Amino acid sequence: MTHPLFEKHRTLLEEAQAAITRRTHWTPYPENPRVYGETALDEGAQAFEAYRDAQFYVDQPGVQGRGGEEASPYGLPLNISYPCCAPDALVAAAHSAMLPWVRAGIDARTGVCLEILARLNAGSAEMAYALMHTTGQSLHLAFLTGGPQAQARGLEAMAWAHREMSQVPQQAEWQRNTSQRLEKRFMVAPQGISLVIGSATQPTWNAYPALFASLATGNPVIVKPHPTAILPLAITVAVARQVLKENGFDPNLVTLLIGNPDGPVARDIALKPEVRLIDYSGAPDFGHWLLDNARQARLVVETGGVNCVLVDSTYDYKALLKNLVFSLCLDSGQLRATPRTIFVSREGIQTPEGLIAEDQFCRDLAFALGKFLEAPQRAVEVLGAIQSPATVARIAAARDLAEETADILRDSSPISHPQWPSARVLSPLLIRAQADQKSFYMEERFGPMATLVSTVNTAESLALAEATMREKGALNFLVHTTRPHVQQLAEDVALRRGVALSFNLTGAVLINQPAGFADFHASGANPAASCGMIDAAFVANRFYFSQVQQHYLPPSSIDWVVDL
Amino acid sequence: MTHPLFEKHRTLLEEAQAAITRRTHWTPYPENPRVYGETALDEGAQAFEAYRDAQFYVDQPGVQGRGGEEASPYGLPLNISYPCCAPDALVAAAHSAMLPWVRAGIDARTGVCLEILARLNAGSAEMAYALMHTTGQSLHLAFLTGGPQAQARGLEAMAWAHREMSQVPQQAEWQRNTSQRLEKRFMVAPQGISLVIGSATQPTWNAYPALFASLATGNPVIVKPHPTAILPLAITVAVARQVLKENGFDPNLVTLLIGNPDGPVARDIALKPEVRLIDYSGAPDFGHWLLDNARQARLVVETGGVNCVLVDSTYDYKALLKNLVFSLCLDSGQLRATPRTIFVSREGIQTPEGLIAEDQFCRDLAFALGKFLEAPQRAVEVLGAIQSPATVARIAAARDLAEETADILRDSSPISHPQWPSARVLSPLLIRAQADQKSFYMEERFGPMATLVSTVNTAESLALAEATMREKGALNFLVHTTRPHVQQLAEDVALRRGVALSFNLTGAVLINQPAGFADFHASGANPAASCGMIDAAFVANRFYFSQVQQHYLPPSSIDWVVDL
Repeated sequence: MTHPLFEKHRTLLEEAQAAITRRTHWTPYPENPRVYGETALDEGAQAFEAYRDAQFYVDQPGVQGRGGEEASPYGLPLNISYPCCAPDALVAAAHSAMLPWVRAGIDARTGVCLEILARLNAGSAEMAYALMHTTGQSLHLAFLTGGPQAQARGLEAMAWAHREMSQVPQQAEWQRNTSQRLEKRFMVAPQGISLVIGSATQPTWNAYPALFASLATGNPVIVKPHPTAILPLAITVAVARQVLKENGFDPNLVTLLIGNPDGPVARDIALKPEVRLIDYSGAPDFGHWLLDNARQARLVVETGGVNCVLVDSTYDYKALLKNLVFSLCLDSGQLRATPRTIFVSREGIQTPEGLIAEDQFCRDLAFALGKFLEAPQRAVEVLGAIQSPATVARIAAARDLAEETADILRDSSPISHPQWPSARVLSPLLIRAQADQKSFYMEERFGPMATLVSTVNTAESLALAEATMREKGALNFLVHTTRPHVQQLAEDVALRRGVALSFNLTGAVLINQPAGFADFHASGANPAASCGMIDAAFVANRFYFSQVQQHYLPPSSIDWVVDL
Repeated sequence: MTHPLFEKHRTLLEEAQAAITRRTHWTPYPENPRVYGETALDEGAQAFEAYRDAQFYVDQPGVQGRGGEEASPYGLPLNISYPCCAPDALVAAAHSAMLPWVRAGIDARTGVCLEILARLNAGSAEMAYALMHTTGQSLHLAFLTGGPQAQARGLEAMAWAHREMSQVPQQAEWQRNTSQRLEKRFMVAPQGISLVIGSATQPTWNAYPALFASLATGNPVIVKPHPTAILPLAITVAVARQVLKENGFDPNLVTLLIGNPDGPVARDIALKPEVRLIDYSGAPDFGHWLLDNARQARLVVETGGVNCVLVDSTYDYKALLKNLVFSLCLDSGQLRATPRTIFVSREGIQTPEGLIAEDQFCRDLAFALGKFLEAPQRAVEVLGAIQSPATVARIAAARDLAEETADILRDSSPISHPQWPSARVLSPLLIRAQADQKSFYMEERFGPMATLVSTVNTAESLALAEATMREKGALNFLVHTTRPHVQQLAEDVALRRGVALSFNLTGAVLINQPAGFADFHASGANPAASCGMIDAAFVANRFYFSQVQQHYLPPSSIDWVVDL
């Protein structure tokens, strides 16, 4: 039951499976654009240009019109339209495509999925531009996280999925005695239709694990992009459909669902009984709505939370400041893994150069941030642009609130982008609040905003960090300390709250850049996400083992004897 | 990080892990009581006698009184009382017991769990009597399914759990370059407190997979038995606590929760935020309540459904009848896997002896049932007694309904038990209904009742079976056919509906006796159960990989270079 595409990519899959078990550094897809050819980025730019002022082609059933009103955060006019298909038509098409895909078997499906990843990888440069002009990421970051790293996440999910699907044989001979000899056949069977709802800021990085885990395990996938970031997932869907078609499968196994701007398309399709899996990464409101309403489906909902930083003591004060500034600036805080709240005690911070007072730390962090922003070209490579005007409004609201009742350590202000004069770029807002001002720090303010919280001592910092992560959830917890007992207490907190813990990060290791094949991005054990990512639970819920049994021998009759 | 108990039981675990991959016949615990000693059953009877008219001893916190009003379906007075503990006290005790159990590591937890299973196995005879006099199962069946087979299910869950927990190393060295070299530590971390709600008819068989999967993955377990079947799980909890204590762990990792008869204890504890896992097997009402309300927990709910039988054609008509009668009688239909509805077309049944008319089949099945019941000693070994008076009422209601609008092929009537004159034993009720009488066959009538449904042809039988299993769920689908195209259509139905399919079962292979380590008891893909059993999904949701990382080298500072 093998397949030419499985054989073609078998080595990569085996390496990936070794990597998830080893959890050392491994990058399956080159992260340097030049490896893709000296002119790869230029060719990517041209390919992207071809999408502008044009109708994106996807040959799907049930077309009712065209839609899509993406706007580049860099100010580039896009004017791309996409076919709007009736959700019921996509559901029906997915259903009729399903059984042959299931019967094709594990290796055929895995091979096709790996080929889709290979094609996406070849198109990484084009994808980088598509991401840049929808999400606001810098070209560098868009290429890295939305190209090779997003593909690596897809591969990581496939590695888990293939391993889990392979745990049970296709056939077994079950024999208890001569009259009880059965042939048992097992087949990986899908849950049903998988709905993947794209995010606005990391559409490929967030969607690929779900897309590939669902598809590889036999589920047709309907991809519903965020209205502001359609192009990256439209390109993805088109590539997947092309590969499916070339290999004799129904392309409607992967379809694109575009909402008319005024219609609640995602809410409508999320409640259809045929939709049995939903993956969503994005703002908490819709995530909670899904958890409350889409009861017919297995949900993987990642809404983020309030990632906390605790600064107790350090081996290298300057390196701490630089690492923190870089994390706060990265993608303008538009990553779910960005630190939001920094707890510092009024007892100060022990450093090799002596005790740094809390006031001094606040000034130093603001100063280091300012220093980093001095060189605009460097700054915008890290910051990118702000994806949504709503984020700008959120900054303004936080500033207003802080002006009234807290302190502004460093205000947010527009930054002029050297290449894109209309780009929406703002420097991060740094607020300083007190321990009793929970509205400042027990809430995720998605975007370039962070709050420093003054506490009585590190014990209070730990308690408040734990309370924050318990109530709001968190993906990670960064602790700077040189003291073993603080380290131990922090480990207890992390274990109780289900957050990934990092100690004393410095250099280019950023808390908000989880490493593929090594780090778990989410635990599923706190409100930030409803499932671990990427682990066995993430894939195992998407399929079951279907079973058929029958006697080998001509049936013999029962003699009513109970053999006790 | 190994543990003496892990080494003691390592071979058994490795055999179990090989068995779930091979899925051939394997029984880890002997199924013949005589293997446990010539006098094992007598000693079991004595041990059981010691529980009667006594206070069951469990040394738990928060005792508020004593409760328990079990009544033997065989009429034996029991008069056993159990300590009633405050749910909050059990939750608090579980929480403080958790971290040392987690830190003990995979092998220590696995070793302790395997030792608990070994002790339970040694007490199988005692357990058989405890089960017989609470669930109504015959001694034979109680021993078999509630002893060695229930323990085997616990072991099967442990085999999956240990394999899934071992996928990730405890430590990894992650190195990207000289300045980015991190130590990453991983630990299996539990979701929180696991609540296992026992069933009335198969308390050990249903509870052991959840109990052992949760405990092995680090979760403290609160066991809430059904009020009519406390003793089997009380014995289980006592054994678990004893083994935990002997090995230096807090016995409050496993506690028994008894509801005062008038208090909604299960509903109360099921909603506590600390309870993060709930396993329930039982009547649909409470199962649906859990799904609707216990939103803070990951739920594994098995409520059963309407298992369908389709009779199209056969190689051996007599063997078909006998197998069907045996399945309908087994444990008086008090198994979730019992067939409920039998579809037969008015075109008749092709057999080697020629076409059997549908009317003839109905008469033959009723006659075969009567013949089987002729020998009461043999009959009660298979039927056992009826666990609940509610089942007797359900039979009466079905009879009343059938008398008005359908046909009774064979009425249910009391059977006198040779050893237990007060035993609640009734013969199965066989109803014959038409395809438009959905109230007769699209509903699970738990107990000794089955409905034969007349259809136009096998195509209609398939369509109605699929509709029934889609709406009500089902664990299995039994199809008697000699025709390849019917076989193919049935496979499509089974795949779409997520039911385990069996063809032409005869002899002692019963649809309602799934084989451990070979069969999947549930798919999780239809309303009968919310999770596959027993598979990776069943265990993987109970834990996540907790992660801690820090630099190996003295931190180096960041140079702000973006290396695109």
